[in-house]
Amino acid sequence: MLDITPRVEQIIEESRLHNGVVNVSGRGSTLGVTTLEYETGCVADLRRALDKIAPANSDYAHNARWGDDNGFAHLRSALMGTAKSFPLCDGKLGLGTWQQIVLCDFDDRAREREVTVTVVGD
Amino acid sequence: MLDITPRVEQIIEESRLHNGVVNVSGRGSTLGVTTLEYETGCVADLRRALDKIAPANSDYAHNARWGDDNGFAHLRSALMGTAKSFPLCDGKLGLGTWQQIVLCDFDDRAREREVTVTVVGD
Amino acid sequence: MLDITPRVEQIIEESRLHNGVVNVSGRGSTLGVTTLEYETGCVADLRRALDKIAPANSDYAHNARWGDDNGFAHLRSALMGTAKSFPLCDGKLGLGTWQQIVLCDFDDRAREREVTVTVVGD
Repeated sequence: MLDITPRVEQIIEESRLHNGVVNVSGRGSTLGVTTLEYETGCVADLRRALDKIAPANSDYAHNARWGDDNGFAHLRSALMGTAKSFPLCDGKLGLGTWQQIVLCDFDDRAREREVTVTVVGD
Repeated sequence: MLDITPRVEQIIEESRLHNGVVNVSGRGSTLGVTTLEYETGCVADLRRALDKIAPANSDYAHNARWGDDNGFAHLRSALMGTAKSFPLCDGKLGLGTWQQIVLCDFDDRAREREVTVTVVGD
Repeated sequence: MLDITPRVEQIIEESRLHNGVVNVSGRGSTLGVTTLEYETGCVADLRRALDKIAPANSDYAHNARWGDDNGFAHLRSALMGTAKSFPLCDGKLGLGTWQQIVLCDFDDRAREREVTVTVVGD
């Protein structure tokens, strides 16, 4: 789980837009995008909850069908969602003080990930 | 669970817009919209997970109050969300290779469903 | 859990925009925004489901680390999401008949909350 807020803010600044909506969208079906107070406690709690909702074992129809090992990752992605949108207000990303945008890579091996940040407005 | 990606792409093409944000929004409180690798394994895994999170039985306050049988469908909808937004980049919907937009009808009887696709940008 | 649909509709009317996308975004990491048929049964069912997914006890790494009591609130927020977007069609918010926008304050004490409603379109 990675805090991508600084990178999103940089792209907003480069866009030179001041008001509108910012969409943060991960490409793929084994990742998720959400917000979290990004500190080790909350990160651990979210991991544990996901382990309960979609355990990282091999008991998945996706695995049985394709010989994959990442059925749990697909499931977590579908439940959390891969994209979130936030307001842009006077050039600032509209988040709370303790709220960061977090990219969750659920896959069973390290991967390079692509996240698209789109700013719409004026 | 229905793969609606081709229909969303058709609407994008008709919009003649090239860059911006695409919002895919189901109307109603007993459906969900998410992304998934749309193959029978992942679909079965998601169904099973939802059956665990919100079992399709009659033990719901909504059912007790209104004589309905679809309290589980309302719950699944609130937890998954009914709308998702994605980037539009150079005329292409910004999804991963194995990532499809999926409409989930959670209700206890077959229904006609309305999904609104809105493209904002230029 | 609070039905904020009327307030969102008021802001849309004040915006004088007719078509586009409406983003409803809560500020903070211990709240959620979703849609629900806003009646006491569905509200009770959602509460109960969240109590199962993220029980309101003290068994959270966030609590252990910071001496807080709201680890469950952070977890619920990350799983539900703090923002949702909906279509604006001919001046009307694109929801189903029984579908309301609901602000969920998960925190362990009463708080004032800020929700930003952004309308993008024309």
